[in-house]
Amino acid sequence: MTKLEEFLKERRQVVEEVLQRYAPPEDRFPPLIHKAMRYSLFSGGKRLRPILVLECCRLCGGAEEDAFPAAAAVEFVHTYSLIHDDLPAMDDDDFRRGKPTCHKVFGEAVAILAGDGLLTLAFEALSRIRDGAVCRRAVAELARAAGSAGMVGGQTLDISAPAPDEPRTERVYLTHLLKTAAMIEVSCRLGAICAKAPQNALNAVSSYGRNLGLAFQITDDILDVVGEEEKVGKRLKKDAEKGRLTYPSVFGLEESLSEARRLVREAKAALSIFADKAENLCALADFILTRTH
Amino acid sequence: MTKLEEFLKERRQVVEEVLQRYAPPEDRFPPLIHKAMRYSLFSGGKRLRPILVLECCRLCGGAEEDAFPAAAAVEFVHTYSLIHDDLPAMDDDDFRRGKPTCHKVFGEAVAILAGDGLLTLAFEALSRIRDGAVCRRAVAELARAAGSAGMVGGQTLDISAPAPDEPRTERVYLTHLLKTAAMIEVSCRLGAICAKAPQNALNAVSSYGRNLGLAFQITDDILDVVGEEEKVGKRLKKDAEKGRLTYPSVFGLEESLSEARRLVREAKAALSIFADKAENLCALADFILTRTH
Repeated sequence: MTKLEEFLKERRQVVEEVLQRYAPPEDRFPPLIHKAMRYSLFSGGKRLRPILVLECCRLCGGAEEDAFPAAAAVEFVHTYSLIHDDLPAMDDDDFRRGKPTCHKVFGEAVAILAGDGLLTLAFEALSRIRDGAVCRRAVAELARAAGSAGMVGGQTLDISAPAPDEPRTERVYLTHLLKTAAMIEVSCRLGAICAKAPQNALNAVSSYGRNLGLAFQITDDILDVVGEEEKVGKRLKKDAEKGRLTYPSVFGLEESLSEARRLVREAKAALSIFADKAENLCALADFILTRTH
Repeated sequence: MTKLEEFLKERRQVVEEVLQRYAPPEDRFPPLIHKAMRYSLFSGGKRLRPILVLECCRLCGGAEEDAFPAAAAVEFVHTYSLIHDDLPAMDDDDFRRGKPTCHKVFGEAVAILAGDGLLTLAFEALSRIRDGAVCRRAVAELARAAGSAGMVGGQTLDISAPAPDEPRTERVYLTHLLKTAAMIEVSCRLGAICAKAPQNALNAVSSYGRNLGLAFQITDDILDVVGEEEKVGKRLKKDAEKGRLTYPSVFGLEESLSEARRLVREAKAALSIFADKAENLCALADFILTRTH
């Protein structure tokens, strides 16, 4: 196991414990909705976003526990977005991480409600931040990043046709920025905010997160073209099927890969103020470029 | 115009201004999602919940402006819940307040996202509460009332079959409590919380809101049986069609009406500590019993 793999494995264990603590138990009334929420929440995610919350908090000198509510919140938002994305009216996917999607198991109505429940739960988690001013700021930041001018806006761009005169390069960039980078950036920001970091540290982790998020979505687009379905755990080639704008479709595979490399370099450069302490986050950025699922 | 009608009309104008201020403009990027959110938000709602926030804040001695963020938030949550309820996978309704529903105008995918955007926006609105401790508490209360152990849980009960051994009377009561009363109760509570009300005042408006909410849902069930579609502005008789548990179907029309009357009496009694100052809220409770839409 590489040093990065060990780091991720150990962090994932902490995240699992946090999620278990912040998610309602399966027998809470009404049990059906809590079963559905937990089904999607505990189905083997990478936990990238909460790991970023925890690590950016540590990097900025915060105590780990101070970032637990925000770590839970970003994973709740991420899970809700996957449930709603997979619905027949959206991406219509039957499998996610190699398991049947929420609506295949619980039906569409319960899946819509499970997503709604998880999104709401994210803010309940944030309300457990003890410091009122930090809590208020965290709620504002998460709502902006996840909402209609952030992730939800990015989803809207992704499923709707561009205006005839809209440049494709600008459109695909903005879609990636809102759909993926906004939530990854805010994960890093929330970690810093929970640590009460000074402005220069907050700016540094924001830049890291935004560039990492953009690189992550480009490699996701690339995987959709060149990946193996068994490893990725979901249906591929669907971007092309649906005529969606992706980096490879707009810029070609080679230029997309070199843009991802450039973004990863920028992400790492932003962390230079932290020197050696940012080692794990830098290794994580490099790893994005080599991932196969 | 009765005194109550004048009160409601004047309050509604204030609420409309607040919603205009807290809702993103139609041309905010990406415009499609903001158009869809505003279409449902400004389609002639009664604004009952935000009016309760404002009036309970006033009753507890708070300044009106202090309750604006919470007033906007509860209406955003209410509107999102209607959009998701009307979806083909849920109630499958083509009309709401006499206008085509969100998914009929914008398609299912955008309607799902518009609901998600409004739910997220509710918490962004709450983050505008200046006092950190009050904001934190408001977020916790709204998330609990709107979430999987509140409104979303009530929706889940409403669309799923009860266990074979589950008493029908208990089931219909719990469904009403979670689906409708939780949000009406929290609207009253948020008003009091924004006014920094003492515990006895908070308890009083909570009891008022819970009883009012239960009475409101019972009269809604009754209207579904005896109402006129033109006045109500949506398809009726659908509870029976779908074999749903309602107060009339479990207790009969007459007993349902007498239960609604009893709840309204309890709602008003809870406000006795406010004496004459609670006049408008008492008149509103009486009005619930006579409504035709």
